[in-house]
Amino acid sequence: MTEAVSQPAVWQIEQAEYDDRLTRVRFALVERELAALVVFGAHRIAYLTGFFHIHTERPIVLVITPAELGLLIPKLEQEHVAGSLGSARLAVYSEYPGTRHPMSHLADLLAELGLGGKRIGYDHDGYYDVNGYLGPPLSSLLERPGEPARDIVDTMRMVKSEAELRLLRESARWGDETFAELVARIEPGRAPREVALEASLEGTRRMTATLGPTYRPLTIFLGPPARAVLHAGANTVFPHGLGSGEVLRRGDVLSGLAHADVGGYIALQGRTMFLGEPDPRCVRAFSLMLELREVALEALRPGRRLCEVEADICRAYERLGVLEWQRHHSGHSLGLELHEPPFIDLGDERVVEPGMLFAVEPALYLPELGGFAHGDTVVVTATGVERLTLSPLDLDALTIDV
Amino acid sequence: MTEAVSQPAVWQIEQAEYDDRLTRVRFALVERELAALVVFGAHRIAYLTGFFHIHTERPIVLVITPAELGLLIPKLEQEHVAGSLGSARLAVYSEYPGTRHPMSHLADLLAELGLGGKRIGYDHDGYYDVNGYLGPPLSSLLERPGEPARDIVDTMRMVKSEAELRLLRESARWGDETFAELVARIEPGRAPREVALEASLEGTRRMTATLGPTYRPLTIFLGPPARAVLHAGANTVFPHGLGSGEVLRRGDVLSGLAHADVGGYIALQGRTMFLGEPDPRCVRAFSLMLELREVALEALRPGRRLCEVEADICRAYERLGVLEWQRHHSGHSLGLELHEPPFIDLGDERVVEPGMLFAVEPALYLPELGGFAHGDTVVVTATGVERLTLSPLDLDALTIDV
Repeated sequence: MTEAVSQPAVWQIEQAEYDDRLTRVRFALVERELAALVVFGAHRIAYLTGFFHIHTERPIVLVITPAELGLLIPKLEQEHVAGSLGSARLAVYSEYPGTRHPMSHLADLLAELGLGGKRIGYDHDGYYDVNGYLGPPLSSLLERPGEPARDIVDTMRMVKSEAELRLLRESARWGDETFAELVARIEPGRAPREVALEASLEGTRRMTATLGPTYRPLTIFLGPPARAVLHAGANTVFPHGLGSGEVLRRGDVLSGLAHADVGGYIALQGRTMFLGEPDPRCVRAFSLMLELREVALEALRPGRRLCEVEADICRAYERLGVLEWQRHHSGHSLGLELHEPPFIDLGDERVVEPGMLFAVEPALYLPELGGFAHGDTVVVTATGVERLTLSPLDLDALTIDV
Repeated sequence: MTEAVSQPAVWQIEQAEYDDRLTRVRFALVERELAALVVFGAHRIAYLTGFFHIHTERPIVLVITPAELGLLIPKLEQEHVAGSLGSARLAVYSEYPGTRHPMSHLADLLAELGLGGKRIGYDHDGYYDVNGYLGPPLSSLLERPGEPARDIVDTMRMVKSEAELRLLRESARWGDETFAELVARIEPGRAPREVALEASLEGTRRMTATLGPTYRPLTIFLGPPARAVLHAGANTVFPHGLGSGEVLRRGDVLSGLAHADVGGYIALQGRTMFLGEPDPRCVRAFSLMLELREVALEALRPGRRLCEVEADICRAYERLGVLEWQRHHSGHSLGLELHEPPFIDLGDERVVEPGMLFAVEPALYLPELGGFAHGDTVVVTATGVERLTLSPLDLDALTIDV
């Protein structure tokens, strides 16, 4: 390796921020009089340490004490541990199921960390029901019951740092670019899946060329690093559509999504489009959706409770006479995952704070016509929200000439 | 719709098989004197009913009684329910978190199904820690404690039916084809990620064109329907590598994976390759890996315990003097998920049966050289195993001319 002449931008969270996150967890441990936090969730471990991994039947468990870090890992990950975890006390098990259960190794690690008989918090009481894993709850390994404390990490994740927002802005930019690649390829007779994969390929190619050799995608099980999704016609009625074998036809309502992984962070966007001149009923639904969207973006302000925000939006659905076409709440947070708490929901009493990130996506689903939804990722500012995803919104821009 | 002149092949499990699967669960309920099985796992629900969905913060829960089916769903999925579930008793909740918790709706559904005070089995004691979901365990909704019974479904899934094997053979075929597309694009200077995405696009294009308009991918969060993955150089040392920004270089050890989703089923394959003439130490590691592979395919026979199979393979690692380079057990089952139980593992005492499916992948990871592993999906026959994935295995075929 030769020294770099100019420092390239690194599209990842820096070590100092991970150190800071761990410090904040340690303050919370002291406040709650907990001797440790035991973390089973992959996204939480990634958030706290920069160690990204895939949940399989082989548990990976992080233990945070005021003075130390412990990590339970399978042998196959032992060369993969670095960064925050370079100095962690490791417990390495050979395999799952193996001749000795991973949770027995975890019990050893807890003892080595001096946690016997102490009050311990956890994000989840044991490892997960994934890929056939079976094992005892964490509580069964402890002399006194553990305590649910996942909110320590989940609450931290709800307000994004400057470094996170830098990655999210770049993610939004590549979502915009990938969405443009999608739009450019839409034409009658083509399969939506193929159009979306081509756009994903081109978006990924351009993003990785621009971000340079330090770029690494970290959310690999979401598909290509920059990804477009396209649903057409009746399929747009399913908010989480699974795709079909149809081809694009003149007159279709289209639903396009795009997102990109920058340093493991993802800003999401979606647009309702039309292939050729839309049916007047579609134009009407589209314009009602835009009205709901304006209400939502106006209602989302710091200091308000999310249930109040959603109540405002629901009143707009009612006022416009479209409540029967509402299928879901108006948004959710995101970041390392496509859906994260909190939610813009009648049942979510949490208060909106500057730095929170939301996918705002009030929608109308008309069984006979299709789904109508624009989704944008916004960050809460001191006074309102700022849009990060900037693809066009209006009917003209989203009506594709045929 | 006009009547089809010839019946096209439908690349999905047929309704009669789902009915049969439910019948088998009902027999198990009677045997165990359980009044119902409550199923939270998305793959188990898909296996039992053909209803594929994505785990989010919104729980979807299936309840099977001897006489009825119940289904808890969020409003956004209500138009999505069909097939086995067309006649299910539905409990529809508006949202998560919502003003009334989804588990309260589940309690109502259990009461409506006449399950109050009855013995109830579950696959998991409540919904999962996913995307911020929080809620009470199932047991807290019941008058008497529920009983773990996920093995009813998981055991059924371990032996594949003829219909499942038909889909898996087709999946293997498209994995082979996609792997060939990958190999055809490998050359020095190219980015492995781009090569893999191009191969995925072309594999998907050819697969969907061949399988026809009834084809639908069902495992969308694994990425493109036919998917190739490529890791190069030092990155091949990580069995579950996350990809890097490097370009392919002459002399690289390459690790290629391919799989395709046919009716939600996936056969997996992997190959170690070389870009140009390999280093003699790599040739040696490659040939040792092939020896281990032969031992594994020979050892895997019906009637033997999986721990005995793995013990045979471990003895071969020892005999060849390569135990220090072993990082994981020699294989796992698969089907609807890339990893499923049982495992070819020293701790798995289950007996190998005809119809079981395994990814067989004994591997050597040499930190200074790279990872060496061929993975193939095999089905257990009356006397041994049959390979479903058929990409070439030998050094010549896997050394790419530069």
